[in-house]
Amino acid sequence: MRQIKLTIEYDGTNYVGWQRQPNGISIQQVMEEALARLTGEPVRLHSSGRTDARVHARGMIAAFMTEKSLPLSAYCEGMNCSLPPDIAVLQAEEVSLDFNPRHDAKGKHYRYSLHIARCRSPLQRNFAWHLRDSLDLGLMQQGGEYFVGEHDFAAYRTTGCAAKTTVRRIDKVEVESAGPLLHINVFGSGFLRNMVRIMAGTLVEIGRGKLQPERVRDTLLNPSLKAGMTAPPEGLCLMEVFY
Amino acid sequence: MRQIKLTIEYDGTNYVGWQRQPNGISIQQVMEEALARLTGEPVRLHSSGRTDARVHARGMIAAFMTEKSLPLSAYCEGMNCSLPPDIAVLQAEEVSLDFNPRHDAKGKHYRYSLHIARCRSPLQRNFAWHLRDSLDLGLMQQGGEYFVGEHDFAAYRTTGCAAKTTVRRIDKVEVESAGPLLHINVFGSGFLRNMVRIMAGTLVEIGRGKLQPERVRDTLLNPSLKAGMTAPPEGLCLMEVFY
Repeated sequence: MRQIKLTIEYDGTNYVGWQRQPNGISIQQVMEEALARLTGEPVRLHSSGRTDARVHARGMIAAFMTEKSLPLSAYCEGMNCSLPPDIAVLQAEEVSLDFNPRHDAKGKHYRYSLHIARCRSPLQRNFAWHLRDSLDLGLMQQGGEYFVGEHDFAAYRTTGCAAKTTVRRIDKVEVESAGPLLHINVFGSGFLRNMVRIMAGTLVEIGRGKLQPERVRDTLLNPSLKAGMTAPPEGLCLMEVFY
Repeated sequence: MRQIKLTIEYDGTNYVGWQRQPNGISIQQVMEEALARLTGEPVRLHSSGRTDARVHARGMIAAFMTEKSLPLSAYCEGMNCSLPPDIAVLQAEEVSLDFNPRHDAKGKHYRYSLHIARCRSPLQRNFAWHLRDSLDLGLMQQGGEYFVGEHDFAAYRTTGCAAKTTVRRIDKVEVESAGPLLHINVFGSGFLRNMVRIMAGTLVEIGRGKLQPERVRDTLLNPSLKAGMTAPPEGLCLMEVFY
């Protein structure tokens, strides 16, 4: 028995998300079916976490057990021949049998992208949240600083989130301008469901001057206070998982 | 009678190109139909030029005549409500009746994007040409320099090109690295059909060491010599038209 760890990139636009769902095609289903065709075995992929419908990944991590002794290139170059154009394996490595993609993850980097312009952008439509208003970057950075540290993020999860504890650690929040795009880079130990999207939505409301940067501090001290809106999924990308 | 000049952005992935074709949906057809619904008149759009199937634009220019006196915002914000998500009007201006988008164009900026990595990228699949080999930027820049000036570009057009003269002026060719992407920026007075794609394909073969940079000079002096391959359409974007 071997365990294989895969690094996966995908354009989530046409999927219901990472996890198998009854209502549509998921990345997990497409990956598991391609691996089953390749190995001739039923394959169960365990990932570092989930992503929502329309959310992207440049470095999703998932692992599976196999009895076969195919060369690693079969799981990378080989898989990429049978996967659809919007999913690809970037790397395949053999790892120890006790590697657990979810529990062993030390941290993750998510990027939320905004497109700021008077008109919507056809070329960015699936990869950034389009906003007409100009945003105050200084205020957003101030708000972002309040996220850093270990806090109760109960105000930053969706109602469907089943996590037992809502305490998470954020290591860094960066707001960087790149032409008409604004990237919010978030590094942290782990994330509740919709947490990055609510963080991004809150920072946007701060950048618009509709919320004070101190609102972040207040919602972390008192989770019954409302955070900002949930930013739409297309702007979000899971960049990297750290082990 | 008024003439309205539009600046148009589109993701060309799902179109047969700018120009109306019997075999599929073109950007021109979608734009003309949306304008006809808006104005209640039949509308004929005249563009600065064509783009091939799957080629993109951030700044295509097209103009039309209208008897209506709608506010300019109707042709921008108004149009964007009825256009599909992969096409948008970025700007609408009233111009004099003798403005001709094709003949009055002083120059154009095209960008050809390459994605250089061991594995194909799902997120770049519609916007860059994926190459596995690393390229020698210095050689590509050297080759690019030979394009600058007024030359006979007969070796740099597809067989279907109906242009009367094949002499064109190139003002600048820049090769710039941006992470895993490589952008080839080409500025020139005008372009033959597939010219930028053959220029990009030739520079790629130079970067791979398969052609010498001097091959560019030789093909411009002697158009019966073969230039490099035609790069695929998805990497090409019309960035701006200058008047």
